[in-house]
Amino acid sequence: MTDAVRRAIATVSLSGTLEEKLLASARAGFDGVELFEPDLLSSQLTHVEVQEYAYDLGLAIMLYQPFRDFEGVSDAALARNVRRAESKFDVMERLGADLILVCSNVSEHAIDDDELAAAQLHQLAERAASRGIRVAYEALAWGRHVRDYERSWAIVAAADHPQLGVCLDSFHILSRGGDPRGIREIPAEKIFFVQLADAPRLVMDVLQWSRHYRCFPGQGGFDLRGFLGQVLDAGYDGPLSLEVFNDVFRQSDPQRTAIDAMRSLLFLEDGLRPARTVEGAALPAPVPLRGYAFVELGVDFESSLAAQRLLAAMGFARVGEHRSKRVELWQQADVRVVLSCTSGVGDVPRVAAIALESVDPAGSLRRATELLAPVVALRHQPEEADIAAISAPDGTAIFFCRTESNDETSWFGDFEAIAGAEADSPANLLQIDHVALSQPLDCFDEAALFYRSVLDLQPRDREELASPDGLVRSRALADSEAHVRFVLNAPALGDGGYGAAAGAQHVAFACDDALLAARVLSERGVRTLRISDNYYDDLAARLDLEPTLLEAMRELGVLYDRSDDGEFLHFYIEMPGARLFFEIVERRGRYDGYGAVNSPIRMAAQRTSPLVGPRAVGH
Amino acid sequence: MTDAVRRAIATVSLSGTLEEKLLASARAGFDGVELFEPDLLSSQLTHVEVQEYAYDLGLAIMLYQPFRDFEGVSDAALARNVRRAESKFDVMERLGADLILVCSNVSEHAIDDDELAAAQLHQLAERAASRGIRVAYEALAWGRHVRDYERSWAIVAAADHPQLGVCLDSFHILSRGGDPRGIREIPAEKIFFVQLADAPRLVMDVLQWSRHYRCFPGQGGFDLRGFLGQVLDAGYDGPLSLEVFNDVFRQSDPQRTAIDAMRSLLFLEDGLRPARTVEGAALPAPVPLRGYAFVELGVDFESSLAAQRLLAAMGFARVGEHRSKRVELWQQADVRVVLSCTSGVGDVPRVAAIALESVDPAGSLRRATELLAPVVALRHQPEEADIAAISAPDGTAIFFCRTESNDETSWFGDFEAIAGAEADSPANLLQIDHVALSQPLDCFDEAALFYRSVLDLQPRDREELASPDGLVRSRALADSEAHVRFVLNAPALGDGGYGAAAGAQHVAFACDDALLAARVLSERGVRTLRISDNYYDDLAARLDLEPTLLEAMRELGVLYDRSDDGEFLHFYIEMPGARLFFEIVERRGRYDGYGAVNSPIRMAAQRTSPLVGPRAVGH
Repeated sequence: MTDAVRRAIATVSLSGTLEEKLLASARAGFDGVELFEPDLLSSQLTHVEVQEYAYDLGLAIMLYQPFRDFEGVSDAALARNVRRAESKFDVMERLGADLILVCSNVSEHAIDDDELAAAQLHQLAERAASRGIRVAYEALAWGRHVRDYERSWAIVAAADHPQLGVCLDSFHILSRGGDPRGIREIPAEKIFFVQLADAPRLVMDVLQWSRHYRCFPGQGGFDLRGFLGQVLDAGYDGPLSLEVFNDVFRQSDPQRTAIDAMRSLLFLEDGLRPARTVEGAALPAPVPLRGYAFVELGVDFESSLAAQRLLAAMGFARVGEHRSKRVELWQQADVRVVLSCTSGVGDVPRVAAIALESVDPAGSLRRATELLAPVVALRHQPEEADIAAISAPDGTAIFFCRTESNDETSWFGDFEAIAGAEADSPANLLQIDHVALSQPLDCFDEAALFYRSVLDLQPRDREELASPDGLVRSRALADSEAHVRFVLNAPALGDGGYGAAAGAQHVAFACDDALLAARVLSERGVRTLRISDNYYDDLAARLDLEPTLLEAMRELGVLYDRSDDGEFLHFYIEMPGARLFFEIVERRGRYDGYGAVNSPIRMAAQRTSPLVGPRAVGH
Repeated sequence: MTDAVRRAIATVSLSGTLEEKLLASARAGFDGVELFEPDLLSSQLTHVEVQEYAYDLGLAIMLYQPFRDFEGVSDAALARNVRRAESKFDVMERLGADLILVCSNVSEHAIDDDELAAAQLHQLAERAASRGIRVAYEALAWGRHVRDYERSWAIVAAADHPQLGVCLDSFHILSRGGDPRGIREIPAEKIFFVQLADAPRLVMDVLQWSRHYRCFPGQGGFDLRGFLGQVLDAGYDGPLSLEVFNDVFRQSDPQRTAIDAMRSLLFLEDGLRPARTVEGAALPAPVPLRGYAFVELGVDFESSLAAQRLLAAMGFARVGEHRSKRVELWQQADVRVVLSCTSGVGDVPRVAAIALESVDPAGSLRRATELLAPVVALRHQPEEADIAAISAPDGTAIFFCRTESNDETSWFGDFEAIAGAEADSPANLLQIDHVALSQPLDCFDEAALFYRSVLDLQPRDREELASPDGLVRSRALADSEAHVRFVLNAPALGDGGYGAAAGAQHVAFACDDALLAARVLSERGVRTLRISDNYYDDLAARLDLEPTLLEAMRELGVLYDRSDDGEFLHFYIEMPGARLFFEIVERRGRYDGYGAVNSPIRMAAQRTSPLVGPRAVGH
């Protein structure tokens, strides 16, 4: 990818030692880093070694940060601060860094006098100039007096020194509801640095919000495109740098986090085209998805027998056998389930792959790889289809397929049809509605951005659901026409010990009459999840429901939700083991949710179910 | 314990199914529960079965909650709300519950009219009366119009119905900075219920604060004693109930949480004596502690050889062998280390026990057992001391000892002296300064309250420390004379996967010249933790230090901190394996901290140390 944009990441955004952070940044394709001083202080590398190591990796040290509480001080304090700055300039010389970040003073002793601040920053810039160093002044959202970029820019303008400019940080500006439209009034050459961070919308102390909950662009709720658009309109062509303080990233694999970070920048930049000028190659456009080709369930020998019996009872017919693998294709209407017998034990059954109907599988794959998705090489015989496949953050394979059987790229031809394979009586399941995947907490935000950017799915807001074993964080995504829906679930507190909710996955099938489906399946001996009577008593108290509907739902274990747009009826089918189950859903009207209000009921029911047992999560 | 106080806990405070919550509450000695409606809705037990199960366990269902958005509504809404209430009254009859919690209306449609609210609550009370049910009205801190108890009480007074009273919740009152002194103006018979919850002082949206961060009394920053004093002064003699929404407790063992909860109530009540009247037996008074008798390190055969070599090099002498166990006593000045060879593998070496000098070991044990600390029965021969021992939340044994050798209760006599056992040259270590214990996140708040209540240690505020593998939560406790100091560390996000900081323990020895000690140990070949040069460069830039002092610290790997009260010099000694290490500290002046500012430096250094390796935490 030829590209004129320079991209950087602050070392504080990644876990590990300084060496690990630099290596991860370089491998993810960053051009440089902001060196966060505590990472240097705790490093066993000397300053010169850091410079050399970064150079060897092709990384520039684009910013040294932070330098605190410099301006708006007494003369005595100024003398101390200048001495402190000189010693940092020494460090920067050895590092080969020529830009220092000065944050607006947060001390209670800071003097509220912009002229004084400007004069003192001018002095600092003069000192810096003699060392070939430039100073970027940033308004912290919680600065004592200087909290917005309008004021930091006014001070920089008044100081009027060529070595002094502003640093603009999206978090500090957007967290306080600032209007970024004033940015384009700043001369481009006075914007020395731009830091990008997103964040979920939280109502809390802005310092704590900043220190713990920042995330990469596209993972939170800020309008980063609007912000960056203003920056580019101002003519800024310096580095775009991610400065993200995040409790989860601090303990995640730095290499994964660095790639997640780079993906967020590529996606953000691409979202600005063609209206704004971002130099470099555009990403391949997202390819429309038309639904699910199939889901592939990985089963071991024992669970494969149970799965076959269950699929047959649910009205699926075994319609094909793979020509070269121990894989069976089961079908009902437009629902296809592939059973793949693995030799692995333990973590099965599970969703091994999700095959999506793409109008252009190769185009889907191109976009995915440009967005740094790992490609999975699937073994196949020469005459078999070469399926485009990538690996999602939690390891689930995502295939891009076309099912039309005459197409040479179709996977369908790899299966030998089983003659006369018709289910006696299909249960009216029409298509796959959604797939719910449990994520390690470390993958949760990464996965949401992955599906958003790679598959062009729109995320909903996060929710928190109470399970008997702890809170579950949940987020749904769907394409604009809702052909493809994902739900991501993760334990809200990581794996906290005794009762930590571990993840279960499920596949939801759509039908047009959930009560009928539940009745048919029940008659065929399919065991549906038993829902507490108390739930239906409460439903009756809360909502004005037809008594016959209520009684039918109670009898069959069907759950209910309602929105302004429609209704949702759904029930669950258990498989042995705690890792995978099925859901049958009926959407009435334009209901667009997932019945999250019922998830605690379902999770509690699974907790006491003899088949599933403790610790299954998600909606 | 004979006792007139009735104690309750809300089921939402505990993890698990409703059955598990009830069982845990009963086993911890609670008299009743608040039944949180979602726990009932997801239970497979019928209402009558819940009543019977609670009855069998000796638990009363003291409150049914919550009922929302009832008052201050239009006539049409009132009719719906009354119907909804009647259906809840049906449920309560089957449960055998006669008190319902009505929370102040949070709907944006709520009408700001206290007369209307009073009239409608009167109607509700009238309906309730015919069923023998009473209504407790509570001001939520985020109620639409009614947010403080003064106003909820005014409405209840105006409604003037014998079946209507107020519920007072310490969180809702104290989180908004309310003054509890008005509570005693409320007639006792109109206070229908009292809910107690503590919380750390956070600056955030009060609803989120309430839903996620409440904790048991004594674990947070609220003045619960002051609050409860006002409640008792009003003449209230109803149940004291803990309603604690807490993300960690939601995923912790409910039995442990219930005991933690009961301990918090016993400690809170006891803190009110003798000034207030709390009926029932007082706890035995805390027994003064005089320091550490010894720390016992559990080692396997391999680590025992390394430990022996290290202790000898550090100037300890092997002064005794236990008469009946494979245990050695090493001593230097007033520092005693017991090496205990276990057959266990894996989780060693570790701190197996901490023996505290108590002026009355039996009294210490009595207080501990009244506070529900598990007693550890130590095997001993008839002629050996019967050491009083309890088990801390993380499993570490705490012994209460007297070391005076003529005392029959002394453990000292159990060791056979080794003749002529003198270290050639002690390294000037004087006493044990503190012990740092890593905790699973689930134990962190529990452990702080345990040491606070059982040992009468005063906790400091929590801190968060950045390690290369994630944030570490840390809290220090000490008795009023600082004879005994503990530091508790836990990963801030549970065990989050890839880089989760796992715990290391350490024992800190005090000396009066850390530079000398470091030099002596270094000459004897004791390997001290290598601290980055960059740390010292920064120290020089930050603080005005004697250059000779700075150079000596740099040469020897000694870290530095300074407060208004004094200075702190400290360094670290590694043992093979990541689980246990030593610290040597020198306190100058009245410095009372632990050098937490240096913990990130130390953790990063350990991360790259060949002996300790990745993932050691704490300060």
